[in-house]
Order: sequence, then C-alpha cells, then structure tokens
Amino acid sequence: MAGPSRGSPARLVVVGGGFAGLWAVRALAHAPLAITLVDRANHHLFQPLLYQVATAGLSAPDIAAPLRHILRGQVNVDVRLAEVTGIDLAARHVVLGADGAGGTLAYDFLLVASGAAHAYFGHDDWARHAPGLKTLDDALTIRRRVLTAFERAEAAAAAGDAAERDAWLHFAVVGAGPTGVELAGTMAEIAHHTLKREFRHIDPSRARVRLLEAGPAVLATFPPALQAKARAQLERLGVEVVTGTPVAAIDGEGYRLGDERHRCRTVLWAAGVAASPLGRLLAESAARAGPAGGPADVAGASEAGEAGRDGIELDRAGRVKVRPDLSLPGHPEVFVAGDLAAVSQPDGRPVPGIAPAAKQMGRHVAHVLRARLAHGGGGTDATGAPFRYRDYGNLATIGRMAAVVDLRGFRLSGLVAWWFWLAAHVFFLIGFRNRLIVLVNWAWAYWTYQRHARIVHGGGPGERATPDR
Amino acid sequence: MAGPSRGSPARLVVVGGGFAGLWAVRALAHAPLAITLVDRANHHLFQPLLYQVATAGLSAPDIAAPLRHILRGQVNVDVRLAEVTGIDLAARHVVLGADGAGGTLAYDFLLVASGAAHAYFGHDDWARHAPGLKTLDDALTIRRRVLTAFERAEAAAAAGDAAERDAWLHFAVVGAGPTGVELAGTMAEIAHHTLKREFRHIDPSRARVRLLEAGPAVLATFPPALQAKARAQLERLGVEVVTGTPVAAIDGEGYRLGDERHRCRTVLWAAGVAASPLGRLLAESAARAGPAGGPADVAGASEAGEAGRDGIELDRAGRVKVRPDLSLPGHPEVFVAGDLAAVSQPDGRPVPGIAPAAKQMGRHVAHVLRARLAHGGGGTDATGAPFRYRDYGNLATIGRMAAVVDLRGFRLSGLVAWWFWLAAHVFFLIGFRNRLIVLVNWAWAYWTYQRHARIVHGGGPGERATPDR
Repeated sequence: MAGPSRGSPARLVVVGGGFAGLWAVRALAHAPLAITLVDRANHHLFQPLLYQVATAGLSAPDIAAPLRHILRGQVNVDVRLAEVTGIDLAARHVVLGADGAGGTLAYDFLLVASGAAHAYFGHDDWARHAPGLKTLDDALTIRRRVLTAFERAEAAAAAGDAAERDAWLHFAVVGAGPTGVELAGTMAEIAHHTLKREFRHIDPSRARVRLLEAGPAVLATFPPALQAKARAQLERLGVEVVTGTPVAAIDGEGYRLGDERHRCRTVLWAAGVAASPLGRLLAESAARAGPAGGPADVAGASEAGEAGRDGIELDRAGRVKVRPDLSLPGHPEVFVAGDLAAVSQPDGRPVPGIAPAAKQMGRHVAHVLRARLAHGGGGTDATGAPFRYRDYGNLATIGRMAAVVDLRGFRLSGLVAWWFWLAAHVFFLIGFRNRLIVLVNWAWAYWTYQRHARIVHGGGPGERATPDR
Repeated sequence: MAGPSRGSPARLVVVGGGFAGLWAVRALAHAPLAITLVDRANHHLFQPLLYQVATAGLSAPDIAAPLRHILRGQVNVDVRLAEVTGIDLAARHVVLGADGAGGTLAYDFLLVASGAAHAYFGHDDWARHAPGLKTLDDALTIRRRVLTAFERAEAAAAAGDAAERDAWLHFAVVGAGPTGVELAGTMAEIAHHTLKREFRHIDPSRARVRLLEAGPAVLATFPPALQAKARAQLERLGVEVVTGTPVAAIDGEGYRLGDERHRCRTVLWAAGVAASPLGRLLAESAARAGPAGGPADVAGASEAGEAGRDGIELDRAGRVKVRPDLSLPGHPEVFVAGDLAAVSQPDGRPVPGIAPAAKQMGRHVAHVLRARLAHGGGGTDATGAPFRYRDYGNLATIGRMAAVVDLRGFRLSGLVAWWFWLAAHVFFLIGFRNRLIVLVNWAWAYWTYQRHARIVHGGGPGERATPDR
C-alpha cells in the first residue's frame, strides 16, 4: 500500500489540473511514474481570460480544454474527474468524494495543487449577494447577473420606477486587484459602448460602475507610478474608483461604505482569495500522523522525520508553508504548488499567485521528482533543489486598450501596454488551445473527430446546478 | 385601453423571439406600429443546431444572439425580457411574470409565437431522468450528462465494477424524429471517434447508443425509401435502432422496453412536443371573454363575432387551431404563429413544426397586419389573406457525413445529402450571425464594441439555476 509494489512504477497522484498541476504532469511525460491527475472539473481553465467569459467577451469553451484531451497522448497519466475530500498522509492515500463515485487513491508521491477560492473574510453571507470569479460557473453567474441587471433596469424604467432603475444600473466591484480592475473596466466598456442604442427606456451609458478598494491604491502589487496611471485609465473609462474605504456590509439591496448605504443590485467580489481547503486537510492529517517515516524505498524518510518536528503551518490565507523544494515539512513525498503554496522569494516578498509562478512551481516539482527517481528514489537527495521564482514581470489589463505592464523596472501603460498584454495572452492562449473559426471548427469536427466545446459547465461532475453563491 | 389612443401608433405585442416572432417583427420594420417583443430568454436561438451544443460541437453563444442586438436598429421595437404568465383577451393585455418585474402590456394587436416544449405524455416523472432538448439550458444539461457519463464509466471501470461501467456506457435516445436521430448519430460519433484514446480503463467505442422509437420507422415524416436509408446510416454509425416498441418506464436506473429492464444511466428524450402553455391560456381567456366585439377601429369586430361562436380549439398537442389567415377565431386582433399554431396544408397534411414554416408564418402575419393598417385598420378586410406553406423540402442530418434530403420528390442521402444539409445550415447560420475566429472576434470586440457571447444561459431572467428536469 505505502510503497510502490516491486517492479511497478511509483504512483504519483496530482490533485488539481490548473497551471501548477498540469505543467508538473506534462514535465513528467517520460518519468517512470504511474500518474493520476484528479480534478473536480473536466477541463483546464485559462484563468487569465476568465473575466472575459464573465463579461461575455468569450464563451466558456473558448478558454477551457478537457484535461483528458490535453493529456490523451501521455500514456503514464490517468485522468480522474472527482473531488478530493480527504488526504491521509499516514496511509498515503487521498479520498475521493462520492460525486465522482468515491473510493481512495494510494500514492507514493503526492502533489497538491488545488489552488485558491475567493474568501469573504468571515462574511460568508455576502457570498450569495456578491459572486466571486474563480470557475467557469462563477463567470457564467456573473455574466447572467450583469446582463440581467440591464434588462431589469429597462423594465423598471418602462414601469416608471426611477429608484429601482438606478439600483439595477449601479454596479459595484469590491477589490481593486487585477481581477477587480479587469471586471470594472470591462463593465464600464459594456455600459458605455457595447449596449449603446439597444435599449428604449434606459441609457446604459448612465450606468454607474464603482470599484471599491479598502486599501490606499488600485493594483497594490504595482509600483505607485503605474497605480496612478491605472487609476487614471479606469476613470477615463468611466469607472468611479473609491479607495481607502472598506465595504462594511453587502445584502440583496446593496452595500454599505462606512455609514453610507448604497442601493445596488449587482455587487461583484474580487477582494479576497483563500487557499483551497485541502491545505487545512493536509495540516490536520499531518497533526494526526505526526512525522511520517515512510517506507525505505521512498526518499528522505529519516530526514523527513526531523523536518517533521515543526509540523505543517498555514499562512493567513490558508496557504501551506512548504520547504524550499516545495515539499511538505516532514513529508518529502508530498509537494504543494501553485496558489496553495506559500513560498517566499530571496528578498522575502511572497511568490505571487499568478499563472507563470504556478507553471514554474509545477515544473520545479517535476524536476525534483525526476532527481529523486534518478537516485532510485534514494534518500541521498531528500531535499530537492530549492525553487527559485523567475519574475518576468507583472501585467494587468484595465479595459479597452488600457493596461499597465511592469517588466522589472521597464514600465508601460495605456495602449502600448494593452497591445503587449494582448500579444502575451493571445500567445499563451493559442499555445494552450489552437482555435479556428468556430463554424469551420465545427464542420472540421466531422473530419478530425475533435469537438472544440467539450466542456462541462453550468453544472459539474454531479448534477450540481449553476451556483448562485 | 382597448384601441390605440388617437394619433399614437397601434400597439403590437409579440410573445416569443423565435423564428415566427422575430421574422414577423423584422417584416414590420416600417409599419406604423409600436411593437413590444417579449421573450423569457434574452436571445434568439438557432434551434436547428441546438443538438450540436448538446453534443459539445458548438458552444452556446455560437447559435444564439441577443434579441436586443438583432433589433437594435429597428426603432419601432421595444424588447422585454420577461415570461408571459397570462393573457386577457377581453382587457387586451398580457400579464408578465414577477421574474421580469411583472406588470401588464396592453395591446391592440397580439401575436403569440411561444413555440413548443417537450412533452412526456403524462409521465412527468420521467422528465428529471430523461432531459429533452428545446433550450440552451437543456442542451448544456444534456452535454453535462453525456460527458459526465463517460467519466463515471471510467471511475467504475477503475474500481472494477463492470455492471456500473456498462450502465454508464449505455445511452438511450427516446424518439426517432429529426432531433432523436441527430442526437443518437452524434453520440455514436463521440463514443466511437471523439473520445478515442482518451480513457485508460474504458473503451468509449464500446458504448451502447440505442435509438428507441415506438412507431414503425425512423423519421416518420420522410418517404419510406429515405427512412430505410436513414436507418442504415444510423446503424453504420453504430447506433442500435429499435422501432415498434414504446418505452414503458424510465427511472434513475434505466428504462423498460416491454418487459425488459435495461440498466442505463443516460436517457435522452426526443419523443414528444407539446405546444407552449400559452395556447391553453388563450383558450381559457376566450372561454371567459366570449366572442370579442373589439372597438370600431380594430378590424373585423362584427365578423369576429360570428367566427367567435365556435370559440378556440386546441389540437391534441395543445396547438391553437387558427383561421386561414392565422388569426384567432373570434379575435381578428390576435394571431398565432410557429409551433404553437395548428395549420393544415391544402392537401390536409399539417404544416410541419420546422424553422422555415415558422418564418413563413411570421412573415404572413406581418403581411396581414400591414394590409389591415393600410385599410386604416378598417373592417373591410377582417379576414386577411390565407396562409400558404411553401414546402422547400425536408432535411435531416444523421451524423458524420450522413443525412437525408427530400426536396419534393428529389431525394438525396449519405454524404451528398450531408453536404447539402451543411451548406443550407451554414448559409442560414451565417445569415443569422456572422462569425469569425473567436480570438480575433474577441480582440475585435475592443474595436467594434461588440461582444459575441452576450448570452444569458445556465440560468434565466431570474436567478433560476440550470434546470435538470
């Protein structure tokens, strides 16, 4: 159970098919491993463009591809659609939810890359009034709410109810990080341009789009000069930027800033992310199991024992504090990568929760595993090479032809930055999924047998309905 | 209230933005009417390709376009997103559901074109086990179930449960009309080709796809020679065609044919259509109201009185029996068109429930209305010109490069027919919605301000979740 049975390859279970998990699996294509990739969605999602689905610029399948299809040629991978509901570090298996037919998956090596979800800072009741943006379902929920709001405003105006009309034409985005900025900028674009001339009783361009940030500035991770530029560009697009004021309450009627109540039918949440609950499951299991010995044929058992003394810590966001090689303290056979991992850069700044960092972590875990296996999984190299984040810069799009780019000192903003951002994303999206004219694509499907929209959404593995959290 | 107030244009309310309703509205672009188009969806749906969304060949926005956007340039139209929950022929208004903010819409002329839904012949409990295909939500539900079934089969196989695996690999389509044939043929294609090589524990090509028809043949509306060809093509694609045997029961475990129970996790319903419930609302309102006099300035009041004696009849499918000009007996100010209208051809055969027929009816109603208005709405032309269905032929696609075409005697089948079918549909889809490379489309959106995926789906006007009926 614990170790790989004699002769057969070691078993690697990867939890999460995001950038970290998928890049790790791909980098292990030729490793002597029996890999099982578990995800509760059937697709890999190109997160950087998710806001485009939420704002109806792209359809869901445009930014997602079935994990099975991506990995169909990699013979050492088994893809499973299931939710991981438990991890047992002592028994070395993960528990699958009944939704995906249940059962357990034994591992010799485990990579947990289940990412992050949005957090409401203890105000879980806000969730149903202010949906966040992490999954395709979230994006379709936001799209539905935003588009429906204009329809309701039109109905209210036709009925002569100006107050109700204005409540439906008021859109608030909470949190001015990259996602909040993208959502606010694009919603302003929809209101002022996309819907122009399509209504008879309202003027969509009179819609009020507010970006609410508790901190002092938008895009906190950018240098002040670019923060100022981003703010100016948002305001040019027609977004009201409110900084330094935390949202005090959110309900079905609107939100409260300090003591001011604001009637607002559409509040979107882009303020907080919390690591996936699997981080806590790991910590709890470690506490139960104590330092893992692990069978002789698995690397670093003894070393692990020592490291194990300090147990597993989570940071405030629930991310797992890993060792420099991204393995779990006390459990060198377990790795954490992507948004779930708390890793610091040499200068002490945390590695950001963005796609390039996740890909790098995934590849790094693959590198460490290959090294271990090269030593016959031997204990000599229990601590793998430390992970070093290569920072290629920081991009954020703001809206129509507006963006900010910070390439380690080299800074762009406005149209040039937007072109840079577009080029980068088109490049990566195309690299990730080659797309042609949809109609050709579909006719083409008859010839190639490929179908470009094989995405489970609006639901999930089970018959779960579209969440309206 | 009843008549158009002096000077202001007559009010036309159109219920339903399908082919009948939308084509009527477009044909009245220059008529002196204040038109309100009411639909519970925000989009017009290109129904003929809906099965492609259900089978993941197309994404939802590929075959839908916002009604508002289609009609943005037509100044005499007001589009309302709402469900019609009542019709009062005496008061001459329609009642809107609270979902769309409620209220009533007064009319001088009314066109009811709310189409059809699927019917379970009194077995409404079958609905949740065997979803039908009428809306985008239906299509996404079917897609989710079909794709998930293969995942569950994989999990069952990995767990060594052969019986469960086979239940998940068994797909049954009930009803061998065009929709059933399309679904079965395409699912066979997915099983035998699309998913090939993507699973490790199952062989998708061993999936069992059965088409269950109570009647003697597939495609009942086609000539016997083409029915035989269609059946042969289905069998070549790997579909088991079972005719002459009605389904006796459907539940979560499977279905019963005669006395045989069949374990089957995925049953799709393509057997019955019933007209929209608005047909019954019309009949009930007419019964309450009795023959409508109608104000002097509305056509044919007297004449209507006579016609009114025989009241309003529905046929077995709940369709409204209309007068030759598609108006309602006793209510010349009310028209019914599309799948909701029961109309016979000169030879007694019913006008089929297909897109070309609906478009023709919609245009005909527009023609009759223009004639009435030309006579100052005068009573001289109370009965408009009779509707004549121009039958351009009958097409059905079966699957990969297989179809049957019946152009009034000129018959095609197989690859040639499929090319004909593809050309016809590509032509109409392009006519309906011009599409480019999605990525270009999206980048393009920044320049044109148009966003190609502005479709509310996975939900509806309210926060209704994806139906899993």
